[in-house]
Amino acid sequence: MSSTTPTIQLLLTGNEIMSGDTVDSNSAMIAQYLGEQGLGVTRKVTLGDDPAALRTELEQLARSSDVVIVNGGLGPTVDDLTAEILAAVAGVSLAEHAVARAHVESWCGRRGVVANAANLKQALLPAGCDIVPNPIGSAVGFQLTVQDCLVVCTPGVPGELRAMLPQVLANMERHIGSFTPGDVLRLQTFGLGESTAQQIIADAGLDWPPEVELGFRAGAPQMEIKLTVRDRVHVDAQRQCRDALQSLFGDHIIGEGGTTLAQRVLTLLAEQGATLSTAESCTGGLIASMLTQVPGSSAGFHAGFVTYSNAIKSSVLGVSENSLSTHGAVSEPVVVEMVEGALAKSGSDYAIAVSGIAGPDGGSADKPVGTVWLAWGNAQQVHTRGLCWPVERTLFQTMIAAAGLDMVRRMLLGLDTEPRYFKQRSQKSAP
Amino acid sequence: MSSTTPTIQLLLTGNEIMSGDTVDSNSAMIAQYLGEQGLGVTRKVTLGDDPAALRTELEQLARSSDVVIVNGGLGPTVDDLTAEILAAVAGVSLAEHAVARAHVESWCGRRGVVANAANLKQALLPAGCDIVPNPIGSAVGFQLTVQDCLVVCTPGVPGELRAMLPQVLANMERHIGSFTPGDVLRLQTFGLGESTAQQIIADAGLDWPPEVELGFRAGAPQMEIKLTVRDRVHVDAQRQCRDALQSLFGDHIIGEGGTTLAQRVLTLLAEQGATLSTAESCTGGLIASMLTQVPGSSAGFHAGFVTYSNAIKSSVLGVSENSLSTHGAVSEPVVVEMVEGALAKSGSDYAIAVSGIAGPDGGSADKPVGTVWLAWGNAQQVHTRGLCWPVERTLFQTMIAAAGLDMVRRMLLGLDTEPRYFKQRSQKSAP
Repeated sequence: MSSTTPTIQLLLTGNEIMSGDTVDSNSAMIAQYLGEQGLGVTRKVTLGDDPAALRTELEQLARSSDVVIVNGGLGPTVDDLTAEILAAVAGVSLAEHAVARAHVESWCGRRGVVANAANLKQALLPAGCDIVPNPIGSAVGFQLTVQDCLVVCTPGVPGELRAMLPQVLANMERHIGSFTPGDVLRLQTFGLGESTAQQIIADAGLDWPPEVELGFRAGAPQMEIKLTVRDRVHVDAQRQCRDALQSLFGDHIIGEGGTTLAQRVLTLLAEQGATLSTAESCTGGLIASMLTQVPGSSAGFHAGFVTYSNAIKSSVLGVSENSLSTHGAVSEPVVVEMVEGALAKSGSDYAIAVSGIAGPDGGSADKPVGTVWLAWGNAQQVHTRGLCWPVERTLFQTMIAAAGLDMVRRMLLGLDTEPRYFKQRSQKSAP
Repeated sequence: MSSTTPTIQLLLTGNEIMSGDTVDSNSAMIAQYLGEQGLGVTRKVTLGDDPAALRTELEQLARSSDVVIVNGGLGPTVDDLTAEILAAVAGVSLAEHAVARAHVESWCGRRGVVANAANLKQALLPAGCDIVPNPIGSAVGFQLTVQDCLVVCTPGVPGELRAMLPQVLANMERHIGSFTPGDVLRLQTFGLGESTAQQIIADAGLDWPPEVELGFRAGAPQMEIKLTVRDRVHVDAQRQCRDALQSLFGDHIIGEGGTTLAQRVLTLLAEQGATLSTAESCTGGLIASMLTQVPGSSAGFHAGFVTYSNAIKSSVLGVSENSLSTHGAVSEPVVVEMVEGALAKSGSDYAIAVSGIAGPDGGSADKPVGTVWLAWGNAQQVHTRGLCWPVERTLFQTMIAAAGLDMVRRMLLGLDTEPRYFKQRSQKSAP
């Protein structure tokens, strides 16, 4: 039972995840959480709400694991079978658990309702089980040891599961004995692909310590680089690897942890006591939305203009009819005038403007779908760049919005190096 | 082998989905696709890139299934083990497949590169296997029958998998014999929770035909209602259930299929040849972004204003200093003036304005976090409503942006009934 690498398996239940109507993100949450503590999940099994199949599966899992985490099936309806299945596998009966009943009644009471039969079903648990408190929802978690395997049953509601994980981990640690806690360090990057990043690392010929695992999670718009050590005695090596990557990737690294481009830009603005405004055409408000998703963004962001038509570019931002007719809406002169208009109309210190062809329609031989001009700057200087980034519409909007924020980040940091993605995708300069 | 309800199991491979660094959405895609054809997935197993564990698992799955779909592990690196594992389980050797090699070489050729050893590894497949063409990526899919079980190996890149599914289905049909094709009808709703919807259906005492399965997928901001028949002879019953739900939920139904609120609003605007502008405070550009994610949105949407500060509300939209100081930015008079300003500045036919407290900070006893005022209308009439919707910041922004679009939808449809979510969350009218 006590071992340095315990066998941990997950049993994920529910017709909605079997049918694909719901994408299971809970198992990823559990695996990430345990992984950051140095515990790996060995195997995951997913089943619908079929009592016979669930029982057979749980029996097999309990026989072959140190810990089984069951997720889902704790709710009040007849489809919620987990307590019944665990009781059957453990050979015990279902019994009302006093702590669980008190929890359900208190939960209902806070909502001004009396617990009904469906609510109280959630207090009917395998006899002799221990409770895992649920600080959010009405269904408590519970656990039982079956043939030396700890079976922990957790709720399918993601927020409730998340709130319960520290207690689940503590209970697992008690069961499997002490394990070696690891550590994960995440670097957020923008403008690097996974294969490019791997190639750069390989070409650098780093003397990489074997105890630091290198991982990549390519997302849109950011890519995460993950440095995992299975034992915290190796955190110095981990930090040295972080420093080595920072030398290699430098200004492509946005920050550590879960830092987003918008967060970083707002932090840099706050450090300067400065504000930013946006003037968006093809990204259609997405840059403003990314900024305002950040709590407290009102300190650095006061105004955004979504100028989707030529007429609005002129009437709201003062873009000249001449620039629009001579160069077109997707052009260097127009984005420069959009920045100037945004600075003037908002009184902000910095502004960013984008105008491009998101597709699928609207492209031409001269300006194909994916063509975009960006401008960013302040009253002293405005920078521009044209790119061609021909990907699906919403991905285009996401990447271009992020590229715009990245330009502002670079300007605020005083970085004058040209990012890699610009070199690969540059447009010829405007006529 | 040939049976009306074949046993279909999925084997999902990859360290990145085991660790939770990537959320597995591929298995949901496969299950949804097969489900719409009337084929249910029985069980899913997920494993990391461990050859011994994968081999044992695939052997067990092949013994207990009519079809196993393996996803992942087709790439060029040493971690991509699927061909090797299937060959071992089938007791055959790996051999270069001429069709696969030609595909890899042509794929590389189109990119102006010569296929290297890593690329060509993708043509080393279990001897005697059949190819499942990959119209997008370099790695073909492949399949082999092992002990009467069809094992189909598919790529982990979602776009490549999606492109391959019709052929996978055709191959499955050839293997398991004809099955009864089903049908799925989806209704998109806004403003209904799953439990409320179920209660309304139960209270209506409908004579629900047993052959029509009713399912719900609660998302943010929309909830999908799904009507599944396992045999297309029941589509009339399915259509009758759709009509019954339409009578029950009426104007909460946005549309069929995957219709979004933004799509519906843009379609209704196009039918009237009308345009909409947005004036956003707490949603920070999200309404504009939702609209502009829709291809062709430039026909109905020309201008959006993100007026995050009081000063910008005044300078850009002409909101009076008096209204701001007397009633505060989150008030009925201010959102009315925002709508009037947006109409005037943009020349649009309709406008929507929102101002609220998204949190986590900024609330007061009088106006707690979650307080929000909406206004929408045209030159003839402006409607308003105050709500309190105290949820996490980004969920608040999502739900309020959707509620704003829903108000416009209702106005464009001439619906004057009050939506259910307004009744539950209404504010007292402004002073």
